[in-house]
Amino acid sequence: MKRILYIHPIAGVDHELEDYLQKIKGPDSELSMAVLDRAPQHLEYYYYGALAQADLVHRALQAEREGYDAAILGCFYDPGLREAREVVQHTVIMAPAESSLHIASMLGHRFSILVGRRKWIPGMLENVIRYGLAPRLASFRSVGLGVLDFHRDPALTARRLEEEARRAVDEDGAEVIVLGCTMQYGFFRELQNKLGVPVIDPLVASVRMAELFVDLRDSFGWSPSKVGEYESPPLAEITSWGLPKTYGVEALWPS
Amino acid sequence: MKRILYIHPIAGVDHELEDYLQKIKGPDSELSMAVLDRAPQHLEYYYYGALAQADLVHRALQAEREGYDAAILGCFYDPGLREAREVVQHTVIMAPAESSLHIASMLGHRFSILVGRRKWIPGMLENVIRYGLAPRLASFRSVGLGVLDFHRDPALTARRLEEEARRAVDEDGAEVIVLGCTMQYGFFRELQNKLGVPVIDPLVASVRMAELFVDLRDSFGWSPSKVGEYESPPLAEITSWGLPKTYGVEALWPS
Amino acid sequence: MKRILYIHPIAGVDHELEDYLQKIKGPDSELSMAVLDRAPQHLEYYYYGALAQADLVHRALQAEREGYDAAILGCFYDPGLREAREVVQHTVIMAPAESSLHIASMLGHRFSILVGRRKWIPGMLENVIRYGLAPRLASFRSVGLGVLDFHRDPALTARRLEEEARRAVDEDGAEVIVLGCTMQYGFFRELQNKLGVPVIDPLVASVRMAELFVDLRDSFGWSPSKVGEYESPPLAEITSWGLPKTYGVEALWPS
Amino acid sequence: MKRILYIHPIAGVDHELEDYLQKIKGPDSELSMAVLDRAPQHLEYYYYGALAQADLVHRALQAEREGYDAAILGCFYDPGLREAREVVQHTVIMAPAESSLHIASMLGHRFSILVGRRKWIPGMLENVIRYGLAPRLASFRSVGLGVLDFHRDPALTARRLEEEARRAVDEDGAEVIVLGCTMQYGFFRELQNKLGVPVIDPLVASVRMAELFVDLRDSFGWSPSKVGEYESPPLAEITSWGLPKTYGVEALWPS
Amino acid sequence: MKRILYIHPIAGVDHELEDYLQKIKGPDSELSMAVLDRAPQHLEYYYYGALAQADLVHRALQAEREGYDAAILGCFYDPGLREAREVVQHTVIMAPAESSLHIASMLGHRFSILVGRRKWIPGMLENVIRYGLAPRLASFRSVGLGVLDFHRDPALTARRLEEEARRAVDEDGAEVIVLGCTMQYGFFRELQNKLGVPVIDPLVASVRMAELFVDLRDSFGWSPSKVGEYESPPLAEITSWGLPKTYGVEALWPS
Amino acid sequence: MKRILYIHPIAGVDHELEDYLQKIKGPDSELSMAVLDRAPQHLEYYYYGALAQADLVHRALQAEREGYDAAILGCFYDPGLREAREVVQHTVIMAPAESSLHIASMLGHRFSILVGRRKWIPGMLENVIRYGLAPRLASFRSVGLGVLDFHRDPALTARRLEEEARRAVDEDGAEVIVLGCTMQYGFFRELQNKLGVPVIDPLVASVRMAELFVDLRDSFGWSPSKVGEYESPPLAEITSWGLPKTYGVEALWPS
Repeated sequence: MKRILYIHPIAGVDHELEDYLQKIKGPDSELSMAVLDRAPQHLEYYYYGALAQADLVHRALQAEREGYDAAILGCFYDPGLREAREVVQHTVIMAPAESSLHIASMLGHRFSILVGRRKWIPGMLENVIRYGLAPRLASFRSVGLGVLDFHRDPALTARRLEEEARRAVDEDGAEVIVLGCTMQYGFFRELQNKLGVPVIDPLVASVRMAELFVDLRDSFGWSPSKVGEYESPPLAEITSWGLPKTYGVEALWPS
Repeated sequence: MKRILYIHPIAGVDHELEDYLQKIKGPDSELSMAVLDRAPQHLEYYYYGALAQADLVHRALQAEREGYDAAILGCFYDPGLREAREVVQHTVIMAPAESSLHIASMLGHRFSILVGRRKWIPGMLENVIRYGLAPRLASFRSVGLGVLDFHRDPALTARRLEEEARRAVDEDGAEVIVLGCTMQYGFFRELQNKLGVPVIDPLVASVRMAELFVDLRDSFGWSPSKVGEYESPPLAEITSWGLPKTYGVEALWPS
Repeated sequence: MKRILYIHPIAGVDHELEDYLQKIKGPDSELSMAVLDRAPQHLEYYYYGALAQADLVHRALQAEREGYDAAILGCFYDPGLREAREVVQHTVIMAPAESSLHIASMLGHRFSILVGRRKWIPGMLENVIRYGLAPRLASFRSVGLGVLDFHRDPALTARRLEEEARRAVDEDGAEVIVLGCTMQYGFFRELQNKLGVPVIDPLVASVRMAELFVDLRDSFGWSPSKVGEYESPPLAEITSWGLPKTYGVEALWPS
Repeated sequence: MKRILYIHPIAGVDHELEDYLQKIKGPDSELSMAVLDRAPQHLEYYYYGALAQADLVHRALQAEREGYDAAILGCFYDPGLREAREVVQHTVIMAPAESSLHIASMLGHRFSILVGRRKWIPGMLENVIRYGLAPRLASFRSVGLGVLDFHRDPALTARRLEEEARRAVDEDGAEVIVLGCTMQYGFFRELQNKLGVPVIDPLVASVRMAELFVDLRDSFGWSPSKVGEYESPPLAEITSWGLPKTYGVEALWPS
Repeated sequence: MKRILYIHPIAGVDHELEDYLQKIKGPDSELSMAVLDRAPQHLEYYYYGALAQADLVHRALQAEREGYDAAILGCFYDPGLREAREVVQHTVIMAPAESSLHIASMLGHRFSILVGRRKWIPGMLENVIRYGLAPRLASFRSVGLGVLDFHRDPALTARRLEEEARRAVDEDGAEVIVLGCTMQYGFFRELQNKLGVPVIDPLVASVRMAELFVDLRDSFGWSPSKVGEYESPPLAEITSWGLPKTYGVEALWPS
Repeated sequence: MKRILYIHPIAGVDHELEDYLQKIKGPDSELSMAVLDRAPQHLEYYYYGALAQADLVHRALQAEREGYDAAILGCFYDPGLREAREVVQHTVIMAPAESSLHIASMLGHRFSILVGRRKWIPGMLENVIRYGLAPRLASFRSVGLGVLDFHRDPALTARRLEEEARRAVDEDGAEVIVLGCTMQYGFFRELQNKLGVPVIDPLVASVRMAELFVDLRDSFGWSPSKVGEYESPPLAEITSWGLPKTYGVEALWPS
């Protein structure tokens, strides 16, 4: 049984999301959802991401301490992905955009990403480039809705997603659609049926990719390389500098 | 229980490979190995690939007719990958290079591919580019051995792989090593232990990725987009032109 | 006198095409047209290409055995181009897309390619990238017609080509138009006159480029490099494995 | 008189650095140095950057509240650059890598960046790509020294910098050298004299570029575009969510 | 006091432009404007650029002989930029496009360039690529006006610039606008106010960047690298071949 | 009979070169060589290119006035290529690098260019990028000899070319070698025999490509597009501004 922790970078319970996660996980997984003790209500702005980032990384590290097999950083900006992979030793760290884009790339020649607002595009484009998959990007398209809007008026959201998805397919050459926000959860199936092309839900992608990588780690020893980008900071530095106390995370680091 | 067919593009049984495949598959899969009725003994040359390609595609199509959930095209050139994805309707088609490169990309910043001979590099580089992952490629390195050599003198193979892998890590900045031939199977674990970086075995990668995509298909309806690159040829054309008879594959196409 | 063989990847005589070829060849060439013994009626799908590919390569090899100076693989997907260049020893192998794109690049800053249907674009884009000329590509534009449609209603074809060519010039910044199918032959001149920009007919491009490369080979010894991508498979392997008999091409390989 | 704040992302006074900054500023600037209340002793790891980032962004925002014309985020990873540009309204935000690379690009065809350790390269390469200047990058070269080592044994540092800089010039085609750490300050001039190519000190680059952009803002109204990437988060959200109190920065946000 | 020479590649006084330049220079500079003895009236065509280029380079060299600190080559094609940097020894050489694009890159994620006519785009695109900044380019947009038109009907020019700038922002994702002709001077401020995004005037950019680089040279010894692209031709060659006399520039070269 | 003019951008007869050209032209061509009335003795520096450029363009234009079918601009920097294509109406303009790189791309996967000195690389790399063929470039390698050295000590030149060519093949993955200077003429054949890979002589490439394009123009109407990059300057401007008299080329422009 794989133990997966989905970290919702928001301070507040979201039962609907929790239920959704239970439905999409694989049969051999046990999935829990954590929220942060403090957080902005969405991460549309870099500033909000900066506020939440250390807590996100610490929550992922805590997941390792608690024995989780995998932790998912729940936002399509993939906040803290490389930081968490660097700092953990064996916990699988996954994130929605990275997982979605790799899956999308194997389902068609090019994909389009539907974002909420234009503001998100530069940061997310940089992630597409970072993951090496820019050659597979057909376009970004914005539906003109904020994160908090998606579930306020689901009919409007569904209509806007469909409109922009159709344009992506017809005008931009997209063969696969990627929903560019974890809070667009729940819309993919109907949209997929209407459009006749695969529509990637980033929650699904990240949970299922996390399960795969737990298997790969356990069966084949494949974990993020510690030579280069994900080399961990030395414990000696962390403790001798007193970082655990300074940042209130004594529970996370052995003294 | 997922039913997976590994198609070895060679005409002849290979019990060692078969045993290896049984060991690397996941617990919910049943994996069989098929060989071609006729084939060259390796696919190092484009010509050999051209000879085998139609048979490979037909074998994958037959797997669909036989009810397999997935078929794997067993060669790091990924021969017939796009052809098979185009022609099948719901069978998952996977191939070693594509699977390996996506996994490697999530395990480190850049990967190097160890090929047998220099001759392979241009064709494989084009695949890396096709999959969109060229920005993640640190280098190709050749060990100077043909496909048929790898298991003739395993100690030599292991030594040559280790030498070039070290150069890739030290000189090219590779953080992950990808074995660039399915017949390099069996070497990854010891190499990984020696190097301290993940070493991707393409057989493992393709089998496990196939299992994931069967799950994604069954649970979420994600199959290769049929709008664009993987649009299937119309059955009406195939039959009215008499292709099944012309090419001796009447069993594969309804008349 | 250069002897050129145009290989039409179709099983059936096409006198109109044959006449056209005679008109476009250079004065020092003798051009023949070969058809395959068996083939699909067009190669719009990868599957059809897979069916025809070995026969195409063998037909090109046969051309070498018959003493042709050059063989042209007649389809804008350039099927079998690298396979044939690999397997022959001194016959010039040319193909429509490669020839057209190099010529177009010297006639203007960027070119657009007019394809029949959207389906063709990913595969042809990969060829543009493979030839290294993607920086010169302004756009692909689809006229919404299949290969077999082009000469069924020539007026419609001419109108659709003109419409999309104008959009390519006006909206995409194209300065040169490339016809993306050998079966669009016969339309370039009128289109060129109407648009006022060069319109490349891929038949013309491939025949004339083949003639040039025969000259370059004969006068300067320039033939495809056999170090790397086009290294030929060893005859010893081919014969000891019995490939000629297995694939019914004993006439092509010395025993 | 332009008022510039250099933010040293470390918790502790560094008089030597402070003196250096006074020497490199322009004649019409008044430059102060701020340190963080808490921080790791260097930012070689993403984790340390994650710990410091919110404080860095807040310190930059405080600089705006205090009336500074510009704030410089002092580390070659450019931590918090896009976050700070997003959140401030008119203060110029500059960072060492971005400034250095633009200057280097105007001084020669290609530049190499001398980093301390291999670990830094992936993150810094992503910044080079983000700034759009990857085509101008000749290479990264590592001197095998940590941030805290540079001023411990200056003779060793100078020698190692010279060795790798020479290799960059002779083997990688670099025409300009960029020092890839603000703590490599003080070495550029001697190195430049020895090598005979410009050597960019990132402290100098960021201070002088900050001064330029204050002028451009004051004289021509050129400030970071607020349409797109640098759109600021709405004050209404920040206050209604109680973020200032949650994160202990009530002094920074009007209530 | 920095002495800057703006070289207008036209044969004829332009008092309006001269006044404009006085207004945009920095307080520590003395700016003069030179015109060529002979020149076409604009450089929209490569031919005109070829006619003017040697005179431009010689005028820049003369500026060095006259003791100017910097010379600006006044046309958005940046004619003679690399030639002049190569031939001078210590005079700062700047040009409008290079300066504008570097500044624009620090003010937003992507910029669009407003050119007069479509004809200009290929050459200017090549400059964007040469400067390494193509990843930051959102689009070129043409206003359909020649160089000589911009100040003939300023209201029309302003309207056309606004129309295309809006399209660049709304449709192409531009966050910053760059005016793609020095003769579009005087329009940036009103356009900037209307659009709410920074609009870069290339005259301003080049003058201010020239001032910065004079400071960098004088204070830090940063001048274009003479190892590689900007290596100067040997005086011995120039004189022994008699080039000064041949080209009527004896005053520029010591004999 | 095609009439081709090879323009040697040097002021002085070179009978050896003239003889060489006669040997490499095709049987249906008549090839003459022109030299400039004034010129530097080589174009290794941008400055020398700037001095020669207008004369080169005018010489090409004169070739059109004299009824030549094609003019070749004889230097591997391809000086004046786009200027001359812009200004002529129907004369084929060719240049050594462009021709060589297109031919090399069809003879192997990647090519290396052997230059004389490091100084040449940035400018020539920009041409490779401009022609769209950078993806096919394996490397530049410098032999450390100036243009005037190549025929001073032919044995040394041959040895240096061979050394660097071998490195390009063995270390950089080159499959084809391109000689990066027209004055390296005469060395290709022996080098090719020794290396066993094609070695492209840029004189040969440009002459033969010019012949092809004369045929394409005469038989199919394919000439450089006059929509966009190669749009010609209007005669009305040229004459009303008095450019012919100003630049001493009254003979070239109708009054």
